[in-house]
Amino acid sequence: MSLGAVFFSELAGTAMLILLGCGVVANVALAKTKGLNGGTLMVNFGWGLAVFTGVYLSFASGAHLNPAVTIGLAVSGKEEFVPGIAVDVTSIAVYIAAQMVGAILGAVLCWLAYKEHFDAEEDPATKLGVFSTGPAMRNYGWNLVTEVIATFVLVIAVLVSGYTASGLGPLFVALVVVGIGASLGGPTGYAINPARDLGPRIAHAILPIKGKGRSDWSYSWVPVAGPIIGGVLAGLVYLGYVGIYGTPIEFLAKAAGA
Amino acid sequence: MSLGAVFFSELAGTAMLILLGCGVVANVALAKTKGLNGGTLMVNFGWGLAVFTGVYLSFASGAHLNPAVTIGLAVSGKEEFVPGIAVDVTSIAVYIAAQMVGAILGAVLCWLAYKEHFDAEEDPATKLGVFSTGPAMRNYGWNLVTEVIATFVLVIAVLVSGYTASGLGPLFVALVVVGIGASLGGPTGYAINPARDLGPRIAHAILPIKGKGRSDWSYSWVPVAGPIIGGVLAGLVYLGYVGIYGTPIEFLAKAAGA
Amino acid sequence: MSLGAVFFSELAGTAMLILLGCGVVANVALAKTKGLNGGTLMVNFGWGLAVFTGVYLSFASGAHLNPAVTIGLAVSGKEEFVPGIAVDVTSIAVYIAAQMVGAILGAVLCWLAYKEHFDAEEDPATKLGVFSTGPAMRNYGWNLVTEVIATFVLVIAVLVSGYTASGLGPLFVALVVVGIGASLGGPTGYAINPARDLGPRIAHAILPIKGKGRSDWSYSWVPVAGPIIGGVLAGLVYLGYVGIYGTPIEFLAKAAGA
Amino acid sequence: MSLGAVFFSELAGTAMLILLGCGVVANVALAKTKGLNGGTLMVNFGWGLAVFTGVYLSFASGAHLNPAVTIGLAVSGKEEFVPGIAVDVTSIAVYIAAQMVGAILGAVLCWLAYKEHFDAEEDPATKLGVFSTGPAMRNYGWNLVTEVIATFVLVIAVLVSGYTASGLGPLFVALVVVGIGASLGGPTGYAINPARDLGPRIAHAILPIKGKGRSDWSYSWVPVAGPIIGGVLAGLVYLGYVGIYGTPIEFLAKAAGA
Repeated sequence: MSLGAVFFSELAGTAMLILLGCGVVANVALAKTKGLNGGTLMVNFGWGLAVFTGVYLSFASGAHLNPAVTIGLAVSGKEEFVPGIAVDVTSIAVYIAAQMVGAILGAVLCWLAYKEHFDAEEDPATKLGVFSTGPAMRNYGWNLVTEVIATFVLVIAVLVSGYTASGLGPLFVALVVVGIGASLGGPTGYAINPARDLGPRIAHAILPIKGKGRSDWSYSWVPVAGPIIGGVLAGLVYLGYVGIYGTPIEFLAKAAGA
Repeated sequence: MSLGAVFFSELAGTAMLILLGCGVVANVALAKTKGLNGGTLMVNFGWGLAVFTGVYLSFASGAHLNPAVTIGLAVSGKEEFVPGIAVDVTSIAVYIAAQMVGAILGAVLCWLAYKEHFDAEEDPATKLGVFSTGPAMRNYGWNLVTEVIATFVLVIAVLVSGYTASGLGPLFVALVVVGIGASLGGPTGYAINPARDLGPRIAHAILPIKGKGRSDWSYSWVPVAGPIIGGVLAGLVYLGYVGIYGTPIEFLAKAAGA
Repeated sequence: MSLGAVFFSELAGTAMLILLGCGVVANVALAKTKGLNGGTLMVNFGWGLAVFTGVYLSFASGAHLNPAVTIGLAVSGKEEFVPGIAVDVTSIAVYIAAQMVGAILGAVLCWLAYKEHFDAEEDPATKLGVFSTGPAMRNYGWNLVTEVIATFVLVIAVLVSGYTASGLGPLFVALVVVGIGASLGGPTGYAINPARDLGPRIAHAILPIKGKGRSDWSYSWVPVAGPIIGGVLAGLVYLGYVGIYGTPIEFLAKAAGA
Repeated sequence: MSLGAVFFSELAGTAMLILLGCGVVANVALAKTKGLNGGTLMVNFGWGLAVFTGVYLSFASGAHLNPAVTIGLAVSGKEEFVPGIAVDVTSIAVYIAAQMVGAILGAVLCWLAYKEHFDAEEDPATKLGVFSTGPAMRNYGWNLVTEVIATFVLVIAVLVSGYTASGLGPLFVALVVVGIGASLGGPTGYAINPARDLGPRIAHAILPIKGKGRSDWSYSWVPVAGPIIGGVLAGLVYLGYVGIYGTPIEFLAKAAGA
């Protein structure tokens, strides 16, 4: 596997994630859509299945789709992201760059798919809400706490999933994301992924969206910093798991031998 | 496997797809049903599980159920659809013909299951909406863009799914269809399948439905052309995957050896 | 396996099915519950997961839980329901008797779980609706057509599922039932199971439910006859599958050899 | 495996369960959240996926997350909870203590994640409802009956699941919990777990929650006693299964040999 192949893989998967993820918000929020006011659970399933579909496109690179996952894996002591790709500053940069480019591309595709509805929508805040998250109650400190906790849940679940031989594959992470959205999405709209929030925000700033407002850059650091902190914390807690139970491979080998 | 066995398989699966798929629209839309106003998420799950059930009836032919999938597979360079059925003009024609006949049959069964409610419904547009899709905002160009993007998502997901050993079987494609409906169904009602739209539209035109209106033939080319274009694009992108990562069989073999 | 062990197995599974299935209707319909007006999709998932849970309790007998499934299997030419239990009039009678007793028991348990809410509910029709199905528009002929079609979908899906090696186990039938509810439940509330409807109706007639009304016996034959006809038709169509593709074992063996 | 490793495992899994479980109630109930009035089905899925995620963190100890499960397993005649941990008073106490500490920790995390919304919420009963269950109609006897039945369903399903080789892993129990919530959550809000109710109630009593009311200790024994009784009954019924069908290992071995 080359870094170029990793780049394409993460770009494709993250573009799919954002196309479908921002798409479900467009469907429930923009004027005159068929899914208008479809409800929170529909948004939760939409994002979960966006992850699900994105993972299939991104099989070759391990389907991070999220800088917080990449960073959490690095902190957790992993030596290679996938066979042949060592965990180092270069590979981390390639993963994150691909995720950012993919996220911007996915947001552009979502805008094209809902072009007529963006034009028909009158509220600029609703338009921005399709692209990026925003807090229900603006308090940067507590908003950060929420994003830290929610991202910690995502990354620790991904890291420890290797201990359980479930066979669910991409459905596992999709369901965890549905759950995080339902349970922890209330205060900030669960970015839990710096690329998911910053990429579409850049797209919002650049695209010639009719009647768009400002891109709310003053909030933009929260859904970047919170997920990174949450990912690092998850990586550290995972090191505790390894200390107590051994690595997943050691644990499953011992269980099979028992 | 003979072409006759393929024909029966695709016919049975597509009839099941349309019976259940149009059925869920009937349940949420027609007068006096128990599911009236059941919501968009119910429609999304209904169509996803319609695909799920249809795939089981159509195991023998590979369960395309959709000309866009058949065409996407052909573009992707596949040599046989199933063992013994070479990819050529004849077999493609058999697949698509069976899908069309099955779709018409499924629509007839749906009409029979909801006969009293079609009779009780007063709005002709609602009746047509059970059979075929229509745009939320009529603009053939942008409607086409939406159908191209949404079908591309379906077909590329199906094509690349071979790279991921998940064991979900028919649940994989069902969940992708739930996701597409939630995320990209807002502007056009996600035909993403020429047979799904054209077959029931023909049934609508032919059946003696009480108080029915016109069949909206002026829009009917969009949910045919869009899915075909989306399927072709997915086939081409898949060729890029094969160029970068090798075929699924090569990729999984290399991963197993690593 | 003895017929007594079959009896206990089908009784336990069907009791679980009806406890949870009637339970979700109680939750969305009876006065003062926490799930009041929870919506159609919640009812669909509730019944699907009722089947899911019931199947686990009924593993030993093959988890029919439904006379239409038992009859459909018999028509399909099966020689043994489970190893040691030949398909004959006696075993069919044991299956159906256990399903009926289990359904009555499950309805009693549901009544106990929701006792206070049955007492608080003022509408007799709502109370009956927790136990048994009723038509949205009363027309015995068309109601029968709907039940025949819906049950056909259930039983043919169960019968052909052996051709697809999916590994979903009980989740497969649960999802099919969710789909049937969403797509074909609109006109009659999808009994699709004679025991599911008649058992609770008997419980309704017998139990000392406060302020209950009549048990609507005039409709009661429809959700018995319709499912039986649908199950027989599915068994016959399955024979067509076997004629075209061979038995599931033959088909999978040929596919593995190819 | 040491008892210390069991303690950490149950603590981590139960904390995750309660963070996400109480979280979804916060999202649908507290003032100004994005999920406000998200509906009962969203709550059901939120709790189911809370179990799902919690199970992955708690793999090492068998993921009880619930004293009723621990007690049910003990009554069912199990000799070891996991290899090296004998079923005795000490190990049972360790499991339950870890579950209680984890539940309190999870409730604290939920409060932090929703801090601004707890402050903005004016109704003390709504705040308590995020932490602990309460009856829709207060009648301790019937409330107890409901909790006994609902917990019996959970624990018998877990106990008999070993007879069915499904491969669903943690998804199995997640779906059963979704089903119990939809079907039996109407009268009491389905504690079905003494730690799930008592732990957060203690957190509610201790935490400096702005404008909080009383912790309703008069009801608190119901969601402790009911689940314990339900778990014991499930263990006894499971012994009947073993008497009739043999242990799961014996049953599956016989089925494989047949």
